[in-house]
Amino acid sequence: MTVRADRLAEQLGFVLEVDRLKSVLRRGYVADGSRYENTAEHSWTLALMAIVLAEHAAEPVDVSTVVRMVVIHDLVEVDVGDTYVYDDAARAAVAEAEARAADRLFGLLPASQGAELRALWDEFEHGDSAEARFARSLDRFAGFLLNHASEGRSWRENGITTDRVHDRNAMIESGAPPLWDEVRRRLDDARARGWIDPPPAPAPGPG
Amino acid sequence: MTVRADRLAEQLGFVLEVDRLKSVLRRGYVADGSRYENTAEHSWTLALMAIVLAEHAAEPVDVSTVVRMVVIHDLVEVDVGDTYVYDDAARAAVAEAEARAADRLFGLLPASQGAELRALWDEFEHGDSAEARFARSLDRFAGFLLNHASEGRSWRENGITTDRVHDRNAMIESGAPPLWDEVRRRLDDARARGWIDPPPAPAPGPG
Repeated sequence: MTVRADRLAEQLGFVLEVDRLKSVLRRGYVADGSRYENTAEHSWTLALMAIVLAEHAAEPVDVSTVVRMVVIHDLVEVDVGDTYVYDDAARAAVAEAEARAADRLFGLLPASQGAELRALWDEFEHGDSAEARFARSLDRFAGFLLNHASEGRSWRENGITTDRVHDRNAMIESGAPPLWDEVRRRLDDARARGWIDPPPAPAPGPG
Repeated sequence: MTVRADRLAEQLGFVLEVDRLKSVLRRGYVADGSRYENTAEHSWTLALMAIVLAEHAAEPVDVSTVVRMVVIHDLVEVDVGDTYVYDDAARAAVAEAEARAADRLFGLLPASQGAELRALWDEFEHGDSAEARFARSLDRFAGFLLNHASEGRSWRENGITTDRVHDRNAMIESGAPPLWDEVRRRLDDARARGWIDPPPAPAPGPG
Protein backbone atom coordinates (compact mmCIF):
# COMPACT_ATOMS: atom_id res chain seq x y z
CA MET A 1 0.00 0.00 0.00
CA THR A 2 1.37 3.44 -0.79
CA VAL A 3 1.81 5.97 1.97
CA ARG A 4 -0.96 8.04 0.42
CA ALA A 5 -3.39 5.11 0.32
CA ASP A 6 -2.44 4.27 3.90
CA ARG A 7 -3.16 7.82 5.03
CA LEU A 8 -6.46 7.86 3.17
CA ALA A 9 -7.54 4.59 4.80
CA GLU A 10 -6.87 6.08 8.25
CA GLN A 11 -8.65 9.30 7.37
CA LEU A 12 -11.74 7.53 6.08
CA GLY A 13 -11.77 5.31 9.16
CA PHE A 14 -11.86 8.50 11.23
CA VAL A 15 -14.61 10.10 9.13
CA LEU A 16 -16.80 7.01 9.38
CA GLU A 17 -16.17 6.60 13.11
CA VAL A 18 -17.24 10.16 13.94
CA ASP A 19 -20.30 9.81 11.70
CA ARG A 20 -21.85 8.47 14.90
CA LEU A 21 -22.12 12.08 16.08
CA LYS A 22 -25.33 12.10 14.04
CA SER A 23 -26.84 9.77 16.64
CA VAL A 24 -25.81 11.80 19.70
CA LEU A 25 -28.84 13.74 20.85
CA ARG A 26 -28.57 17.01 22.72
CA ARG A 27 -31.05 18.21 25.35
CA GLY A 28 -32.36 21.05 23.16
CA TYR A 29 -34.67 21.16 20.14
CA VAL A 30 -34.10 22.24 16.57
CA ALA A 31 -35.51 25.70 15.88
CA ASP A 32 -38.98 24.51 14.90
CA GLY A 33 -39.24 22.41 18.08
CA SER A 34 -40.02 19.22 16.15
CA ARG A 35 -37.30 17.03 17.72
CA TYR A 36 -34.01 17.06 19.62
CA GLU A 37 -30.99 18.36 17.82
CA ASN A 38 -28.04 16.03 17.28
CA THR A 39 -24.42 17.00 17.71
CA ALA A 40 -23.46 16.78 14.03
CA GLU A 41 -26.19 19.28 13.12
CA HIS A 42 -25.21 21.48 16.04
CA SER A 43 -21.62 21.53 14.77
CA TRP A 44 -22.83 22.60 11.33
CA THR A 45 -24.84 25.43 12.88
CA LEU A 46 -21.73 26.63 14.71
CA ALA A 47 -19.71 26.58 11.49
CA LEU A 48 -22.38 28.65 9.77
CA MET A 49 -22.51 31.05 12.72
CA ALA A 50 -18.73 31.42 12.73
CA ILE A 51 -18.91 32.47 9.08
CA VAL A 52 -21.89 34.79 9.43
CA LEU A 53 -21.32 36.31 12.89
CA ALA A 54 -17.54 36.76 12.95
CA GLU A 55 -17.86 40.54 12.98
CA HIS A 56 -19.38 40.33 16.47
CA ALA A 57 -16.31 38.72 18.04
CA ALA A 58 -14.83 40.71 20.90
CA GLU A 59 -11.47 40.83 19.12
CA PRO A 60 -10.50 40.20 15.49
CA VAL A 61 -10.44 36.44 14.90
CA ASP A 62 -9.11 34.16 12.19
CA VAL A 63 -12.46 32.90 10.93
CA SER A 64 -10.93 29.87 9.28
CA THR A 65 -9.51 28.70 12.61
CA VAL A 66 -12.83 29.26 14.36
CA VAL A 67 -14.68 27.26 11.71
CA ARG A 68 -12.25 24.33 11.89
CA MET A 69 -12.45 24.45 15.67
CA VAL A 70 -16.23 24.27 15.84
CA VAL A 71 -16.45 21.53 13.21
CA ILE A 72 -14.42 19.24 15.49
CA HIS A 73 -15.22 20.68 18.94
CA ASP A 74 -17.71 17.97 19.94
CA LEU A 75 -16.19 14.87 18.30
CA VAL A 76 -15.49 13.33 21.72
CA GLU A 77 -19.24 12.94 22.17
CA VAL A 78 -18.97 9.89 19.92
CA ASP A 79 -17.60 8.11 23.01
CA VAL A 80 -18.90 10.23 25.86
CA GLY A 81 -22.29 11.48 24.72
CA ASP A 82 -23.59 15.00 25.17
CA THR A 83 -23.26 16.59 28.59
CA TYR A 84 -26.13 18.90 29.36
CA VAL A 85 -24.89 22.45 29.75
CA TYR A 86 -27.00 22.91 32.91
CA ASP A 87 -25.81 19.68 34.61
CA ASP A 88 -22.88 20.91 36.71
CA ALA A 89 -22.03 17.56 38.32
CA ALA A 90 -21.91 15.73 34.99
CA ARG A 91 -19.82 18.48 33.43
CA ALA A 92 -17.20 18.21 36.17
CA ALA A 93 -17.09 14.41 35.96
CA VAL A 94 -16.78 14.10 32.20
CA ALA A 95 -13.55 16.00 31.51
CA GLU A 96 -11.26 13.02 31.93
CA ALA A 97 -13.42 10.76 29.78
CA GLU A 98 -13.46 13.42 27.08
CA ALA A 99 -9.68 13.59 27.07
CA ARG A 100 -9.51 9.81 26.66
CA ALA A 101 -12.00 10.00 23.81
CA ALA A 102 -9.90 12.69 22.14
CA ASP A 103 -6.84 10.41 22.45
CA ARG A 104 -8.71 7.57 20.80
CA LEU A 105 -10.47 9.49 18.03
CA PHE A 106 -7.70 11.83 16.91
CA GLY A 107 -5.41 8.81 17.23
CA LEU A 108 -7.24 7.23 14.29
CA LEU A 109 -5.70 9.83 11.96
CA PRO A 110 -2.18 9.93 10.54
CA ALA A 111 -0.01 11.04 13.48
CA SER A 112 0.85 14.62 12.55
CA GLN A 113 -2.68 15.36 11.35
CA GLY A 114 -4.18 13.84 14.48
CA ALA A 115 -1.85 15.90 16.67
CA GLU A 116 -2.81 19.07 14.84
CA LEU A 117 -6.55 18.52 15.24
CA ARG A 118 -6.08 17.40 18.84
CA ALA A 119 -4.28 20.69 19.54
CA LEU A 120 -7.20 22.55 17.97
CA TRP A 121 -9.64 20.62 20.17
CA ASP A 122 -7.54 21.42 23.26
CA GLU A 123 -7.53 25.06 22.26
CA PHE A 124 -11.32 25.06 22.05
CA GLU A 125 -11.62 23.36 25.43
CA HIS A 126 -9.05 25.33 27.41
CA GLY A 127 -7.42 27.92 25.20
CA ASP A 128 -7.20 31.62 25.84
CA SER A 129 -6.99 32.68 22.19
CA ALA A 130 -9.50 35.11 20.72
CA GLU A 131 -10.60 32.27 18.41
CA ALA A 132 -11.29 29.87 21.29
CA ARG A 133 -13.20 32.49 23.27
CA PHE A 134 -15.35 33.34 20.27
CA ALA A 135 -15.94 29.68 19.43
CA ARG A 136 -17.01 28.89 22.99
CA SER A 137 -19.32 31.92 22.95
CA LEU A 138 -20.93 30.67 19.74
CA ASP A 139 -21.36 27.22 21.27
CA ARG A 140 -23.27 28.66 24.21
CA PHE A 141 -25.15 31.18 22.08
CA ALA A 142 -26.35 28.57 19.58
CA GLY A 143 -27.93 26.49 22.33
CA PHE A 144 -29.61 29.56 23.76
CA LEU A 145 -30.89 30.78 20.40
CA LEU A 146 -32.54 27.45 19.56
CA ASN A 147 -34.06 27.20 23.03
CA HIS A 148 -35.60 30.61 22.51
CA ALA A 149 -36.72 29.76 18.96
CA SER A 150 -38.39 26.57 20.21
CA GLU A 151 -40.31 28.61 22.78
CA GLY A 152 -38.31 27.49 25.80
CA ARG A 153 -39.50 23.90 25.66
CA SER A 154 -36.18 22.48 26.84
CA TRP A 155 -35.93 25.02 29.68
CA ARG A 156 -39.35 24.09 30.99
CA GLU A 157 -38.78 20.34 30.59
CA ASN A 158 -35.59 20.61 32.62
CA GLY A 159 -36.75 23.19 35.17
CA ILE A 160 -34.18 25.76 34.04
CA THR A 161 -34.80 29.27 35.38
CA THR A 162 -33.91 32.69 34.01
CA ASP A 163 -31.18 33.02 36.63
CA ARG A 164 -29.48 29.84 35.50
CA VAL A 165 -29.67 30.79 31.83
CA HIS A 166 -28.18 34.15 32.72
CA ASP A 167 -25.34 32.64 34.78
CA ARG A 168 -24.50 29.88 32.33
CA ASN A 169 -24.38 32.18 29.33
CA ALA A 170 -22.73 35.26 30.83
CA MET A 171 -19.37 34.04 29.48
CA ILE A 172 -20.65 34.94 26.01
CA GLU A 173 -19.92 38.57 26.84
CA SER A 174 -16.16 38.02 26.84
CA GLY A 175 -16.16 36.42 23.38
CA ALA A 176 -18.95 38.28 21.61
CA PRO A 177 -20.53 41.22 23.47
CA PRO A 178 -23.34 41.85 20.95
CA LEU A 179 -24.45 38.22 21.24
CA TRP A 180 -24.65 38.58 25.00
CA ASP A 181 -26.85 41.67 24.57
CA GLU A 182 -29.02 39.53 22.31
CA VAL A 183 -29.27 36.80 24.96
CA ARG A 184 -30.49 39.32 27.51
CA ARG A 185 -33.06 40.73 25.08
CA ARG A 186 -34.39 37.31 24.15
CA LEU A 187 -34.38 36.12 27.74
CA ASP A 188 -36.58 39.07 28.73
CA ASP A 189 -38.80 38.18 25.80
CA ALA A 190 -38.98 34.52 26.85
CA ARG A 191 -39.99 35.48 30.37
CA ALA A 192 -42.61 37.90 29.12
CA ARG A 193 -44.11 35.14 27.01
CA GLY A 194 -44.04 32.53 29.78
CA TRP A 195 -41.49 30.34 27.98
CA ILE A 196 -39.31 30.26 31.10
CA ASP A 197 -39.99 30.66 34.84
CA PRO A 198 -43.63 29.59 34.46
CA PRO A 199 -45.79 30.38 37.50
CA PRO A 200 -46.05 27.38 39.86
CA ALA A 201 -49.00 25.13 39.23
CA PRO A 202 -51.87 25.89 41.62
CA ALA A 203 -51.87 23.73 44.74
CA PRO A 204 -54.31 20.84 44.54
CA GLY A 205 -57.65 21.61 46.12
CA PRO A 206 -58.71 20.05 49.43
CA GLY A 207 -60.64 17.23 47.82
CA MET B 1 -31.61 50.41 16.45
CA THR B 2 -27.90 50.67 15.75
CA VAL B 3 -26.46 49.48 12.47
CA ARG B 4 -24.75 46.63 14.31
CA ALA B 5 -27.98 45.50 16.01
CA ASP B 6 -29.74 45.75 12.65
CA ARG B 7 -27.15 43.55 11.00
CA LEU B 8 -27.29 41.04 13.83
CA ALA B 9 -31.07 40.82 13.56
CA GLU B 10 -30.78 40.01 9.85
CA GLN B 11 -28.02 37.49 10.45
CA LEU B 12 -29.95 35.66 13.15
CA GLY B 13 -33.04 35.64 10.95
CA PHE B 14 -30.93 33.91 8.31
CA VAL B 15 -29.44 31.40 10.76
CA LEU B 16 -32.88 30.46 12.09
CA GLU B 17 -34.39 30.22 8.60
CA VAL B 18 -31.76 27.80 7.35
CA ASP B 19 -32.06 25.73 10.53
CA ARG B 20 -34.79 23.98 8.54
CA LEU B 21 -32.03 22.17 6.65
CA LYS B 22 -32.10 19.80 9.63
CA SER B 23 -35.49 18.59 8.41
CA VAL B 24 -34.49 18.03 4.77
CA LEU B 25 -33.92 14.32 4.31
CA ARG B 26 -31.57 12.93 1.70
CA ARG B 27 -32.05 9.61 -0.07
CA GLY B 28 -29.06 7.98 1.64
CA TYR B 29 -28.48 6.65 5.13
CA VAL B 30 -26.09 7.70 7.89
CA ALA B 31 -23.10 5.36 8.12
CA ASP B 32 -24.71 2.90 10.53
CA GLY B 33 -27.78 2.62 8.28
CA SER B 34 -30.17 3.52 11.10
CA ARG B 35 -32.00 6.35 9.29
CA TYR B 36 -31.81 8.80 6.40
CA GLU B 37 -29.23 11.53 6.63
CA ASN B 38 -30.40 15.14 6.66
CA THR B 39 -28.75 17.95 4.74
CA ALA B 40 -27.40 19.82 7.78
CA GLU B 41 -25.53 16.72 8.92
CA HIS B 42 -24.33 16.07 5.40
CA SER B 43 -22.93 19.60 5.26
CA TRP B 44 -21.05 19.01 8.51
CA THR B 45 -19.55 15.81 7.10
CA LEU B 46 -18.33 17.71 4.06
CA ALA B 47 -16.72 20.38 6.25
CA LEU B 48 -14.94 17.68 8.22
CA MET B 49 -13.84 15.96 5.00
CA ALA B 50 -12.55 19.24 3.56
CA ILE B 51 -10.37 19.64 6.65
CA VAL B 52 -9.16 16.04 6.80
CA LEU B 53 -8.87 15.14 3.11
CA ALA B 54 -7.51 18.38 1.61
CA GLU B 55 -4.19 16.74 0.73
CA HIS B 56 -6.01 14.57 -1.82
CA ALA B 57 -7.24 17.50 -3.91
CA ALA B 58 -6.07 17.41 -7.53
CA GLU B 59 -4.50 20.84 -7.14
CA PRO B 60 -3.55 22.85 -4.05
CA VAL B 61 -6.71 24.38 -2.59
CA ASP B 62 -7.46 27.06 -0.04
CA VAL B 63 -9.00 24.80 2.59
CA SER B 64 -10.75 27.67 4.32
CA THR B 65 -12.62 28.52 1.10
CA VAL B 66 -13.58 24.89 0.56
CA VAL B 67 -14.92 24.61 4.11
CA ARG B 68 -17.01 27.79 3.83
CA MET B 69 -18.29 26.60 0.47
CA VAL B 70 -19.46 23.22 1.69
CA VAL B 71 -21.06 24.66 4.83
CA ILE B 72 -23.42 26.72 2.65
CA HIS B 73 -23.55 24.61 -0.54
CA ASP B 74 -26.95 23.09 0.12
CA LEU B 75 -28.78 25.97 1.84
CA VAL B 76 -31.19 26.26 -1.08
CA GLU B 77 -32.67 22.91 -0.07
CA VAL B 78 -34.54 24.81 2.63
CA ASP B 79 -36.88 25.89 -0.18
CA VAL B 80 -36.32 23.26 -2.83
CA GLY B 81 -35.64 20.04 -0.91
CA ASP B 82 -32.98 17.52 -1.75
CA THR B 83 -32.66 16.36 -5.35
CA TYR B 84 -31.58 12.76 -5.61
CA VAL B 85 -28.22 12.52 -7.30
CA TYR B 86 -29.45 9.66 -9.52
CA ASP B 87 -32.66 11.44 -10.65
CA ASP B 88 -31.54 13.13 -13.86
CA ALA B 89 -34.90 14.66 -14.78
CA ALA B 90 -35.36 16.26 -11.37
CA ARG B 91 -31.81 17.58 -11.40
CA ALA B 92 -32.33 19.33 -14.71
CA ALA B 93 -35.65 20.83 -13.60
CA VAL B 94 -34.52 22.18 -10.27
CA ALA B 95 -31.75 24.59 -11.25
CA GLU B 96 -34.00 27.61 -11.69
CA ALA B 97 -35.82 26.99 -8.42
CA GLU B 98 -32.48 26.70 -6.65
CA ALA B 99 -31.37 30.04 -8.02
CA ARG B 100 -34.59 31.64 -6.75
CA ALA B 101 -34.04 30.04 -3.35
CA ALA B 102 -30.50 31.42 -3.28
CA ASP B 103 -31.88 34.90 -4.05
CA ARG B 104 -34.32 34.64 -1.19
CA LEU B 105 -32.06 33.07 1.44
CA PHE B 106 -28.86 35.03 0.89
CA GLY B 107 -31.12 38.07 0.56
CA LEU B 108 -31.98 37.74 4.25
CA LEU B 109 -28.42 38.80 5.15
CA PRO B 110 -26.93 42.29 5.15
CA ALA B 111 -26.41 43.11 1.46
CA SER B 112 -22.65 42.86 1.09
CA GLN B 113 -22.45 39.72 3.22
CA GLY B 114 -25.31 38.11 1.32
CA ALA B 115 -23.63 38.92 -2.00
CA GLU B 116 -20.37 37.41 -0.82
CA LEU B 117 -21.97 34.13 0.28
CA ARG B 118 -24.11 34.02 -2.84
CA ALA B 119 -20.95 34.31 -4.95
CA LEU B 120 -19.46 31.42 -2.97
CA TRP B 121 -22.60 29.35 -3.60
CA ASP B 122 -22.44 30.18 -7.33
CA GLU B 123 -18.79 29.16 -7.36
CA PHE B 124 -19.68 25.80 -5.83
CA GLU B 125 -22.49 25.28 -8.35
CA HIS B 126 -20.76 26.41 -11.53
CA GLY B 127 -17.24 27.51 -10.78
CA ASP B 128 -14.10 26.21 -12.36
CA SER B 129 -11.80 26.96 -9.42
CA ALA B 130 -9.72 24.21 -7.82
CA GLU B 131 -11.74 24.81 -4.65
CA ALA B 132 -15.09 24.31 -6.38
CA ARG B 133 -13.91 21.16 -8.14
CA PHE B 134 -12.62 19.69 -4.90
CA ALA B 135 -15.78 20.66 -3.00
CA ARG B 136 -18.02 19.06 -5.64
CA SER B 137 -15.87 15.93 -5.55
CA LEU B 138 -16.27 15.74 -1.78
CA ASP B 139 -20.03 16.18 -2.13
CA ARG B 140 -20.26 13.21 -4.46
CA PHE B 141 -17.71 11.16 -2.52
CA ALA B 142 -19.49 11.65 0.81
CA GLY B 143 -22.73 10.25 -0.58
CA PHE B 144 -20.90 7.29 -2.05
CA LEU B 145 -18.93 6.58 1.13
CA LEU B 146 -22.05 6.47 3.30
CA ASN B 147 -23.90 4.32 0.77
CA HIS B 148 -21.03 1.84 0.94
CA ALA B 149 -20.83 2.05 4.75
CA SER B 150 -24.56 1.36 5.02
CA GLU B 151 -24.12 -1.74 2.86
CA GLY B 152 -25.70 -0.34 -0.28
CA ARG B 153 -29.16 -0.09 1.20
CA SER B 154 -30.03 3.10 -0.69
CA TRP B 155 -28.68 1.70 -3.98
CA ARG B 156 -30.85 -1.37 -3.70
CA GLU B 157 -33.93 0.58 -2.60
CA ASN B 158 -33.60 2.82 -5.63
CA GLY B 159 -32.48 0.22 -8.16
CA ILE B 160 -29.11 1.91 -8.71
CA THR B 161 -26.57 -0.22 -10.59
CA THR B 162 -22.79 -0.29 -10.54
CA ASP B 163 -22.72 1.39 -13.94
CA ARG B 164 -24.76 4.33 -12.71
CA VAL B 165 -22.65 4.77 -9.59
CA HIS B 166 -19.58 4.69 -11.78
CA ASP B 167 -20.92 7.26 -14.25
CA ARG B 168 -22.32 9.59 -11.64
CA ASN B 169 -19.15 9.66 -9.57
CA ALA B 170 -16.50 9.67 -12.29
CA MET B 171 -16.28 13.47 -11.96
CA ILE B 172 -14.56 12.89 -8.62
CA GLU B 173 -11.40 12.06 -10.54
CA SER B 174 -10.94 15.64 -11.73
CA GLY B 175 -11.16 17.09 -8.20
CA ALA B 176 -9.58 14.36 -6.09
CA PRO B 177 -7.99 11.43 -7.96
CA PRO B 178 -7.25 9.30 -4.85
CA LEU B 179 -10.89 9.53 -3.82
CA TRP B 180 -11.95 8.26 -7.22
CA ASP B 181 -9.58 5.29 -6.83
CA GLU B 182 -11.25 4.67 -3.48
CA VAL B 183 -14.71 4.72 -5.08
CA ARG B 184 -13.65 2.09 -7.57
CA ARG B 185 -12.18 -0.10 -4.84
CA ARG B 186 -15.27 0.15 -2.67
CA LEU B 187 -17.60 -0.33 -5.60
CA ASP B 188 -15.86 -3.61 -6.45
CA ASP B 189 -16.18 -4.55 -2.80
CA ALA B 190 -19.88 -3.69 -2.76
CA ARG B 191 -20.54 -5.82 -5.80
CA ALA B 192 -18.58 -8.74 -4.37
CA ARG B 193 -20.71 -8.56 -1.24
CA GLY B 194 -24.01 -8.29 -3.11
CA TRP B 195 -24.69 -4.77 -1.83
CA ILE B 196 -25.33 -3.56 -5.39
CA ASP B 197 -26.47 -5.27 -8.60
CA PRO B 198 -28.19 -8.06 -6.69
CA PRO B 199 -29.10 -11.08 -8.85
CA PRO B 200 -32.72 -10.91 -10.05
CA ALA B 201 -35.19 -12.62 -7.78
CA PRO B 202 -36.01 -16.14 -9.01
CA ALA B 203 -39.12 -16.29 -11.16
CA PRO B 204 -42.14 -17.51 -9.22
CA GLY B 205 -42.66 -21.25 -9.50
CA PRO B 206 -45.48 -22.71 -11.57
CA GLY B 207 -47.72 -23.18 -8.58
